Order: sequence, then C-alpha cells, then structure tokens
Amino acid sequence: MDGMTSRLPTQPAALAARYGAAVPPAGPWNAMIAALLDHRSVRGYRPDPLPPGTLETLVAAAQSAATSSNLQTWSVVTVEDPAARAVMAEVAGGQKHIQECPLFMVFLADVSRNERLGEAEGKPLEGLPYLETFLVAAIDAALAAQNAVVAAESLGLSTVYIGALRNDPLKVAEVLGLPPGVMGVFGLCVGYPKPRAEGEVKPRLPQGVVLHRGRYDAGPEPTARAAYDAEMSAFSQRNEMAADSWTQRVIARIGTVRALRGRDRLAAALQAMGFPLR
Amino acid sequence: MDGMTSRLPTQPAALAARYGAAVPPAGPWNAMIAALLDHRSVRGYRPDPLPPGTLETLVAAAQSAATSSNLQTWSVVTVEDPAARAVMAEVAGGQKHIQECPLFMVFLADVSRNERLGEAEGKPLEGLPYLETFLVAAIDAALAAQNAVVAAESLGLSTVYIGALRNDPLKVAEVLGLPPGVMGVFGLCVGYPKPRAEGEVKPRLPQGVVLHRGRYDAGPEPTARAAYDAEMSAFSQRNEMAADSWTQRVIARIGTVRALRGRDRLAAALQAMGFPLR
Repeated sequence: MDGMTSRLPTQPAALAARYGAAVPPAGPWNAMIAALLDHRSVRGYRPDPLPPGTLETLVAAAQSAATSSNLQTWSVVTVEDPAARAVMAEVAGGQKHIQECPLFMVFLADVSRNERLGEAEGKPLEGLPYLETFLVAAIDAALAAQNAVVAAESLGLSTVYIGALRNDPLKVAEVLGLPPGVMGVFGLCVGYPKPRAEGEVKPRLPQGVVLHRGRYDAGPEPTARAAYDAEMSAFSQRNEMAADSWTQRVIARIGTVRALRGRDRLAAALQAMGFPLR
Repeated sequence: MDGMTSRLPTQPAALAARYGAAVPPAGPWNAMIAALLDHRSVRGYRPDPLPPGTLETLVAAAQSAATSSNLQTWSVVTVEDPAARAVMAEVAGGQKHIQECPLFMVFLADVSRNERLGEAEGKPLEGLPYLETFLVAAIDAALAAQNAVVAAESLGLSTVYIGALRNDPLKVAEVLGLPPGVMGVFGLCVGYPKPRAEGEVKPRLPQGVVLHRGRYDAGPEPTARAAYDAEMSAFSQRNEMAADSWTQRVIARIGTVRALRGRDRLAAALQAMGFPLR
C-alpha cells in the first residue's frame, strides 16, 4: 500500500463507482478494502520490466491463500519466450496484451504432483480421477491467483485474467510442456498500465441480487437488472462507444455455442489431458 | 489495515514462517503483502457479532474481483438459522465452527440468473449447459470469496473455507432453497478467533516446485518434497501432536475413494442440480 493510499478513493466514491445508484449500506472500511474496490482489469501494458523479486513476492502471496486440505494442487508457469507468448495470444483470440505485458503467468490445476507422490510411495491415489479433485485444483488455482492479483495491485501494478486460454487447453499444454494431470486454467497479465489503459471501475449488479439471506430469492431480480442495464449502457457509452446493456452482453457472450469459441469441447480436452472427471 | 500494521510480521519473519528453510529471494514488500502472507485458517470462533455493515463490505470486496466477461455467475447466501447451520455442520462431517461463527456464507456457482435473463428476453442461452460455464462460475465464486477473505482479515477477522459442503451438495441446495443451475461451491466461516485458535502460519511447498519458468519441470520435486515433509512433520508436532509428513497427509486425504466422503458422486449431484456438464 506504500505510496498508494493517497490515490485511493474515499468510501462513498468507491461504492458509487462499483454500484452506481444502488449503493449498499456503508460498513467498516480501510485502505486495503479501498484498494480491493478500486480494481479494474487492464488490457494495455508498458514494456517496463518489474522490480527484481516481484514474481517471487506474487507467488509467496499466492501460496499463502488457503488450499483444500493443504493438497496444493496448483502450480504456475511464467511465459517469456516471444514465440510461446504469440501462441498464447493466438489461442486467446488475438489479445495483444499477452505479448506486451512484462510478466505473463499461466495458473495450472495440477494433480500430477500428488500423483507422482503416490507413485513414488507405491500408493496410487484413488481420489485423483474424480471431478471433485479437478474442481479442487481449479478453485485452489483461483484462490492463489487472486492473492497474486491483490499483491500486484498493492505494488502499483495492473493485471487481467485470460480465461480464453481455455479456447484450446491442449495447445497451451503442448507449449508449456504440461504432463498429464495438469491444465492451464487461466492466464494472468501483470505490468504497468499504458496511459489511459486503466479505465473506469466497472459497475456490478446491485448487492440485492447477489447476496441472499437464509434462502435464495430471485424476487428483486427483474427491477435490479433493469437498473443495472441502464448503468452498464451508460458505462459502455462513456468507455467503449457502444451502448450495450448487460443483458445484451450476456446474450452475446453465452447465447450460442459458437460464442464459446471452442470451450464447448472442454470436457473432451480435459479427458485427453488426464482428467477423467469421474 | 488500520490498527493491524503493528502486529504484522517483518518480511524475513513472514517468508520464514511460510517456507521454513526454503526461503525464496526477497522481492518488493508492503503491509498488504505482509497481511496476505500472515493468513491462517481458523477453526474456533468467539460468538461476538460483527460490526454493522461488515457483510455488505465483504460482498462489495467480493464483487470487485474480476469476473469472466462480466457474466457475474456467482452468488452468496448467508446462513443464520441455527437448524440450517446444524445441517451444514453435519454435511461437513461435524465441523463445529460452522455453528459457532457469527457469519457463515455459502458461495454459489450460479448460472440460473443468466438463465432467467435469457428466458425473460426470449433468448435461451445455448452456452449454459457446458462444463466450461460451470467452471467459470466456480472460478468466479472463488475469486470473489478470496477478496472477501482478504477484506475480512484486514478488519481483524478470521476465516476458514468449508469445501466439505460438497460432501452433499443436494442437501445444501435443499436447505438454502437453491434453484436449478445453482450449487454451493464452498462455505466460509467469518468471525473473531477464540484465544489460541489462530495458530501458526502453515508452511507451503518450496517455490521451486510450484513455480515453473517457460516449461513445466518436475525435476526438483523429490528433494523439495523430502525437505517439505520434514517441515510439515515438525509443524504438525508443534501444533497438532501427530507428526505426519505432507506425503502421509496427501495419501490419507485422497488415497482412497472412501476418503472423498461422498464427493466421488459430485458429477452425478451436479447433473441432478441442473448442470449437464456437457
């Protein structure tokens, strides 16, 4: 947080940026929470290198996240080779920031390390081939990555997740030399943002439709969605010149199988990569 | 961070606690990173209530995490009713902290909100029934939850994830009134720790086996695992009186199907809950 605190928004400003008119009640607050609310994904990076040891600090933060039963079924690979970066960018549908950021990490769901442990001890691990174990690995990779993101942002760096690596997980595995039982869950660009690349904080759905008390209740949804559609249309117009509502964006993104860009074959790809998903 | 900074460990102390003898090179550092490294899961809570608005602050932090294509395919339910808490504790194999913590949240993979959106607009979303879409929802729930954990810890609160809710996701869905397309991915206890419940920071695997550069390399693993087994035996002896190594713990946890405690049926449970996982 050193040196960051001065540019962090006040609580009313942070809540207004995140929720528009649908601001929730103001609870406890501090500089760390202000930093979390100030997150935005950045898709344009300066080539400036990171300070020495930044990667090790981000990985230490990542490893400090909780991991199910301390199994530690995740790993991370950094990609430096320009040719390998180019393949990653192509898999992700041409996202140029993958090639320009100074640090590109691929977070891995990794049950192979535990599998090797079992083999070395002469105790094959019966629990490995299950969907549950893959899910644990993917969740633990996500918890770890989010800690890395929080650490990076506290150092004045920006980030963006690259879920589009799942367009072709077999290609990613080939380039990174992944053994069976290891899958690239998502990438993460890290670096200093280009001027104006940080953009505005993106509004989210009102808390009333995401937070439920005691039992799930979709009742407030139609009204909240209409209000959020208006927020997102205004946000898009201010930032991207096309005034699509959230409703329109969701339909564009998952309305058709074609829009999944190959990710409709994820189950088959995982099978081929050593995850039977039993 | 207000009021916390004074009790945070120095960089050498934090790295030594997390890595034992296998300390990585010291990189950039600040109070936020010190707080991330100081994480420990807590399984004993005082009944003291949280300050008003704490839940809303945690949810605002959670919603500020990245979400794939802004789909926001996650939700959260709080559980206050003692009878519902008792069922959750039972599903989780008798974890009493689920009943004693002042705030218990269940993070949900939720594609139902987007499904309702498609129905309301007369555009059924073809992308919903795929494994990819469930995975996005589970990952986004994890990113959100980790932000909530970081925010909670910055307020002096402790947390523990409850993955064992997946022992019986259908029971969890019944108690929380979840519609099809919504699954409780994990629970999260939040509260003030009982005396001595915080415990020591748990050591993790050396960075050399988790962090790969350019290509995956399992070469350093046998040596690193032996060193880590010794660290974890000493840690366990200091804290839990049974000197199991990491290797022994992994084998106990996923060596047999029985050890999965019902989670070997996760794929079938998800199918029944409206996730075809195509």
